[in-house]
Amino acid sequence: MSWSIRSAELTQAELLNNESIFALGNGYIGVRGNFEEGYAPGMNSIRGTYLNAFHDVITIPYGEKLHGFPGTQQKLVNGIDAQSVTILVGDKREPFSLFTGTVRSFERALNMDAGSAVRSVHWVSPEGQELKVSFTRLVSFAVRELFAIHIEIEPISVQGPITIVSTINGDVENYTAANDPRVASGHAKLLRTVSSGTAQDVDYVVDETSASGLRMSCATAYSHSDAIAVERAADERSVMYTARFDGGRPLFFTKRNIYTDTLRHGADPLSAGLRIASEAASAPFSEQLARQRAYVADFWKRSDIVIGDDARLQEGIRFNLYQLLQSAGQDAHSNIAAKGLTGEGYEGHYFWDTEIYMFPVFLMTQPAIAKQLLIYRHGILDFARARAREMGHKQGALYPWRTISGTECSSFFPSGTAQYHISADIAYSYSQYYMATEDNDFLWQYGAEVLIETARLWIEIGHYYDGAFHIDEVTGPDEYTCCVDNNYYTNAMAKHNLRWAARSCRTLSRLDADRFGALAEKLGVTEEEILGWDRAAEAMLLPYDEALDINPQDDTFLRKQVWDFDNTPEEHYPLLLHYHPLTIYRYQVCKQADTVLAHFLLEDEQRLDTIRSSYDYYEKITTHDSSLSTCIFSIMASKVGYAEKAYDYFKETARLDLDNTHGNTKDGLHLANMGGTWMAIVFGFAGVRIKDTHLALAPAIPAAWDRYEFKIQYKGRTIDVRITKAEAQLTLSEGDALQVRLYDRDIALEPGKAYVQAIQS
Amino acid sequence: MSWSIRSAELTQAELLNNESIFALGNGYIGVRGNFEEGYAPGMNSIRGTYLNAFHDVITIPYGEKLHGFPGTQQKLVNGIDAQSVTILVGDKREPFSLFTGTVRSFERALNMDAGSAVRSVHWVSPEGQELKVSFTRLVSFAVRELFAIHIEIEPISVQGPITIVSTINGDVENYTAANDPRVASGHAKLLRTVSSGTAQDVDYVVDETSASGLRMSCATAYSHSDAIAVERAADERSVMYTARFDGGRPLFFTKRNIYTDTLRHGADPLSAGLRIASEAASAPFSEQLARQRAYVADFWKRSDIVIGDDARLQEGIRFNLYQLLQSAGQDAHSNIAAKGLTGEGYEGHYFWDTEIYMFPVFLMTQPAIAKQLLIYRHGILDFARARAREMGHKQGALYPWRTISGTECSSFFPSGTAQYHISADIAYSYSQYYMATEDNDFLWQYGAEVLIETARLWIEIGHYYDGAFHIDEVTGPDEYTCCVDNNYYTNAMAKHNLRWAARSCRTLSRLDADRFGALAEKLGVTEEEILGWDRAAEAMLLPYDEALDINPQDDTFLRKQVWDFDNTPEEHYPLLLHYHPLTIYRYQVCKQADTVLAHFLLEDEQRLDTIRSSYDYYEKITTHDSSLSTCIFSIMASKVGYAEKAYDYFKETARLDLDNTHGNTKDGLHLANMGGTWMAIVFGFAGVRIKDTHLALAPAIPAAWDRYEFKIQYKGRTIDVRITKAEAQLTLSEGDALQVRLYDRDIALEPGKAYVQAIQS
Repeated sequence: MSWSIRSAELTQAELLNNESIFALGNGYIGVRGNFEEGYAPGMNSIRGTYLNAFHDVITIPYGEKLHGFPGTQQKLVNGIDAQSVTILVGDKREPFSLFTGTVRSFERALNMDAGSAVRSVHWVSPEGQELKVSFTRLVSFAVRELFAIHIEIEPISVQGPITIVSTINGDVENYTAANDPRVASGHAKLLRTVSSGTAQDVDYVVDETSASGLRMSCATAYSHSDAIAVERAADERSVMYTARFDGGRPLFFTKRNIYTDTLRHGADPLSAGLRIASEAASAPFSEQLARQRAYVADFWKRSDIVIGDDARLQEGIRFNLYQLLQSAGQDAHSNIAAKGLTGEGYEGHYFWDTEIYMFPVFLMTQPAIAKQLLIYRHGILDFARARAREMGHKQGALYPWRTISGTECSSFFPSGTAQYHISADIAYSYSQYYMATEDNDFLWQYGAEVLIETARLWIEIGHYYDGAFHIDEVTGPDEYTCCVDNNYYTNAMAKHNLRWAARSCRTLSRLDADRFGALAEKLGVTEEEILGWDRAAEAMLLPYDEALDINPQDDTFLRKQVWDFDNTPEEHYPLLLHYHPLTIYRYQVCKQADTVLAHFLLEDEQRLDTIRSSYDYYEKITTHDSSLSTCIFSIMASKVGYAEKAYDYFKETARLDLDNTHGNTKDGLHLANMGGTWMAIVFGFAGVRIKDTHLALAPAIPAAWDRYEFKIQYKGRTIDVRITKAEAQLTLSEGDALQVRLYDRDIALEPGKAYVQAIQS
Repeated sequence: MSWSIRSAELTQAELLNNESIFALGNGYIGVRGNFEEGYAPGMNSIRGTYLNAFHDVITIPYGEKLHGFPGTQQKLVNGIDAQSVTILVGDKREPFSLFTGTVRSFERALNMDAGSAVRSVHWVSPEGQELKVSFTRLVSFAVRELFAIHIEIEPISVQGPITIVSTINGDVENYTAANDPRVASGHAKLLRTVSSGTAQDVDYVVDETSASGLRMSCATAYSHSDAIAVERAADERSVMYTARFDGGRPLFFTKRNIYTDTLRHGADPLSAGLRIASEAASAPFSEQLARQRAYVADFWKRSDIVIGDDARLQEGIRFNLYQLLQSAGQDAHSNIAAKGLTGEGYEGHYFWDTEIYMFPVFLMTQPAIAKQLLIYRHGILDFARARAREMGHKQGALYPWRTISGTECSSFFPSGTAQYHISADIAYSYSQYYMATEDNDFLWQYGAEVLIETARLWIEIGHYYDGAFHIDEVTGPDEYTCCVDNNYYTNAMAKHNLRWAARSCRTLSRLDADRFGALAEKLGVTEEEILGWDRAAEAMLLPYDEALDINPQDDTFLRKQVWDFDNTPEEHYPLLLHYHPLTIYRYQVCKQADTVLAHFLLEDEQRLDTIRSSYDYYEKITTHDSSLSTCIFSIMASKVGYAEKAYDYFKETARLDLDNTHGNTKDGLHLANMGGTWMAIVFGFAGVRIKDTHLALAPAIPAAWDRYEFKIQYKGRTIDVRITKAEAQLTLSEGDALQVRLYDRDIALEPGKAYVQAIQS
């Protein structure tokens, strides 16, 4: 029941999209859903295998390079290709292919309950050889280095032998596209092969990047049915394993690829790879499948959302959650790229998408992963400090708009570095984490430092004017309006950042005055500085227009012309691909939620009427050209009481990639939107909020549904939430008694007991 | 008598600067002041020969290329090198060099009255050979294609022969510098040699650009004293001419290089070159010198400014005027590059510098050159129309911020394309030309079309808000504040543009209603459209702050923080080389005159008090990091009555390059500043203005001077202006009687008569 994504598509366009959709990953390895044997000659494929954070450093070219423009950037590397397996049938060695002979049946499935992908084909070769082939793949959560392909062949009518040729190929390139700014346009060849061969019965290839000097090893162990003959051959860049089987009998062939790299396995990733490969080879594939299923089952136990009887939406919701899990880096080097590990769009960079669109899902379902995402940000704090100095700031930390290893990788600052809000977004996620976990250890070790250093940034770039604290010349989330003064979103988030820096100091000081004294000394924090944060937060200018009762996006936004939507043809969207940025900046037109997003994140800053008027105003001028937009409009439509709109926007998020509504799924999935789907349900329909002192819910239910259910983690508890047309039922299934706010009442949840209340509408 | 620039410098730094300072040119050819024989091994030189507008097309690289970012740009090509001459002395063939042996005496001179450069050396070789050598160079104004080098050698004590080896080298490269955004950083090799050899006793090399497909030919004819032997040798990329002379006798050696190219001489520039070379070879060098002297004398007759007894300033003034002449393109393909023809800075591009800083000098001294500069802009109007469409504008013409052949070459739009004011600047120069010449033919043929198409741009991007006409999201002249709303300069200039578009239509309609009807139909102009221009001009928002009585630079300028000048170390200027643009944009800090420039160009828009308060305000926050700034501050200091300041700023302009005060003279001279020197005297000290209906003067005299004199052209007249401590004397030396305004009175000038009036202070 909606646990599988299925496809039988063989068109060029759909194959490319499906490479992203059927991608497998475990947060470390990501493998696109390519066919082992390839497509027909001349067809395009983005054949990709990625290790999270494994990057090369490339030069950023500029026509005019000004001071502080980053000279280099990181780029996610398309790594050693271990997907390739060719099946040759009969004495004529006819290659198995879905594009020759007759395909009697074909289906592929991403099995989200099993954590694997299966492709099943019933095929008759041009010469009449008939067989069934199935490919089962998994990228293991239990053994992070393992990507396995298990092939079973059932001959129906085969004359002569079946030969399987499996390759590990170190001669790989990144994908390029000349005319799309969202895809890289150069630097295809990043890896060279350092060594290849066979050791301890394991084939291997080791590649190295040219500039970053990182090494990646792929060590492959094979197991299979009894073969007539086995042969190994290596050249400078690849290793080939050939096994010939009796074509008259069913056979299996399992390829266990172990990926290791310098970042995680030290200077000699091959040795580690060989060791892990030997271990992995000793376990039967069925056992690996079983461990995978157990891991995934545990994930779903906490993270699944069940809705009524709309199978397509249910599929979309699960798909999005599953891909989030597959993409989330769980070590100190990695985070979640904008496209996860499913493609090369945005060069594999990490953006604010993580903190604002993905982190909340993990925080409320898998807090250990959420914590790891924050630790990554703490790990690059020194880079953020250095970047602030480079920008001319005497104090504070400016997080890079896009990065892998910590330095700014954005070459176009108006919608890159100018988005200073990313520092406040990161601070916000730290505050959310603290509120949802009360993890004081974390606050001592990581949180306070990040909150303090980001707060200092606002003091550094802001100033008092006419009694109010102004922040000039920054870009908010909306990339169709750049480099403005007093962007509402930025100022509101900076205010929150400043308050939380002060609050974290006071909290720690209260917990342990001596220890805090030491920390304050280390970071150079004084009581006067803390008071300065309070003062700036208090005086923060939050633009407000009385006549419209809205928060203007920035100081000058409302004085601009409204974009001429009536005379903009459908094919001119997204606008950024059809108009010069300067022309777009000149108008009131939003790529995505900006003030509306601030109203979601910081709803207590404004009256509900102002939030509703703002929603009405911005909805008219927002194109949703960014995939970060509709989920927020869904949440806020729920908030202000527009149930139908909320549902319509939600539907756009739930199947954005499955239906390729943005037209670029082939370049990788839209991970932020995937988080947005969860948020639209939990924060939107169910009205969940993490408040300073409590958890709040205000459940509603879309008209089209009869029920929906999910679980949330909060302060060590698990709360099961079940909403029907009539009532909301909260059950504290794990943890101690807890008081939460349901609508406008505080209610007490007792362990194991269901609390039921009628739905308010 | 201040007609020569002299130098005996041989340090690396000064040699590089002097390559720019001793550059020769005639608006078509430009040759840097390199030594024929080169410097010592290991020393740097920017060896350059340029043909105005002769360019290649190169790809502009981007990290992120958004819609409308130009994909290519033009780049001035460093052309075939005909400077090289080696002198080998004696049987040991000791090469003449200022870096070996003993230099008994050395001096070089740029003779601005002769139009030539001379280098004289008295040298003793390491082996004791003693001789005097002089090199005389000219780039001819009479024969535009001619660059000649005339060498005379006087043996003092020479044993054995003297051998002269002269080369034409087609194997040339452009200069690159990695870390200065004002110099190009790539694309060095633009030319390949197509053919080389000797024909009709003329050596030649033909080179071709790789992308633009333009050809350049250098055809060289030699004449010299009787030689013992002459030898010619050619390889694929160069031709060498060797002549051996009796070392016991004085000798001369003349190298006449004829440069021709596809743009001016059609598909076969070599044929044209060979023909011109034959003609040029038949005239003695002395005659070519004489014709040069005559041309230059005529130039000085109209353009010289004579001041009292400050030889250094006098030298600076003449140098600047002379270099303007040398750099001004006088054909339809060319204009005046930011660095003239003296270097490769800014890639040889034409900017607004021409219209606002250089055109006025020519308009009032050499109106024929001024007219040609405007015709160039009319010639690229279709490119400006196309650019406007590319930017998303349905009508109008947007001139490129920087260009050679007409397309936008700016890759960084915030201080490039966003400077929409360039279109109004061009319109302004058309209006100035019309007011100073009453050239109706020009208005019919060129002027009206340019004024109309530029006016349409403002209608297209502007809009009414609260009754006022707003222009959002543009950058004014000050590149330290980008992409703002209602930049005072832009709005004021756009207003002027709109008014002049309407006025030109009405003028032409009055002159010939039928002919105007045809023009209006061709351009699609309606009476309603003209009224729309009037309306927008009338309603144009010109920011004004009542409390300060100043015109704010834009809508939000005054709300920003003032730059912390006190804590900015001296070595952090120019700021653009030490701070990220975003950081600079965040503050009240100006690179150059912006509102102050608008107050100069359109002084009748504001009361004098407002202009003075604005001057006071902006002076405090202007770094003059641009060489376009101090001349304007000088003029406006004169205007508002700050005589001392006016003089101080003037002094900074007069010798900016001679004293290398901006530190980058090696990359080429600052042509706009050179025009600014003239303007600071004529528009500044003498208070000359071209008004709608008349010419106005309001002369003052700097305290340090006892007199100054200049001439101006106005409506076919020549007016000699002579200012002393006591009085201003105006003499109508050519043309019919004319009424002008002197201070606040209209006075009548009669042909040949001097009008004298006491200086008002």
